[in-house]
Amino acid sequence: MYVILVYDIVVDDEGKKILPKVFKSCKKYLSHIQNSVFEGDMTKSQMMALKLELQKSLRKDKDSLIVFSSRDQKWLSKEFWGKEDDKTSKFL
Amino acid sequence: MYVILVYDIVVDDEGKKILPKVFKSCKKYLSHIQNSVFEGDMTKSQMMALKLELQKSLRKDKDSLIVFSSRDQKWLSKEFWGKEDDKTSKFL
Repeated sequence: MYVILVYDIVVDDEGKKILPKVFKSCKKYLSHIQNSVFEGDMTKSQMMALKLELQKSLRKDKDSLIVFSSRDQKWLSKEFWGKEDDKTSKFL
Repeated sequence: MYVILVYDIVVDDEGKKILPKVFKSCKKYLSHIQNSVFEGDMTKSQMMALKLELQKSLRKDKDSLIVFSSRDQKWLSKEFWGKEDDKTSKFL
């Protein structure tokens, strides 16, 4: 399935340690396309693995992480209204 | 069509003025669900209007704004792996 993952981690003292962990976990499975946005194809079991991994770090009362998924990339179109896709993933 | 809009504005002097404009424009059509992420249903003409409006502000060499769209919300599922949906839209 095709996945778009967006997160918003509260950058307090603890959050500063969580952010790089979340980034690295997402990078294993998905392409980093924007500040805290990832996209890519994933199997169900990869989704489960990433979810378990991320939920060890995410704080349910503070950190937001939303996963949109579509059974197939063909159901999704993508437009760049600003600069074109920048594949270089800068560690944020 | 169902839209997910994510942006990453370079917050230099000029960007500080652009950010609230982009936020306000998106808020007119979409729900603010996370830091720089919006979602919602839009008609094609609304998409065109928002695109024209935003492209007046966005700097093509710096600012990233990506729009994912699906013909129907039913082709997209949404999961919260962190805190549940927070409908209060904080001006960022």
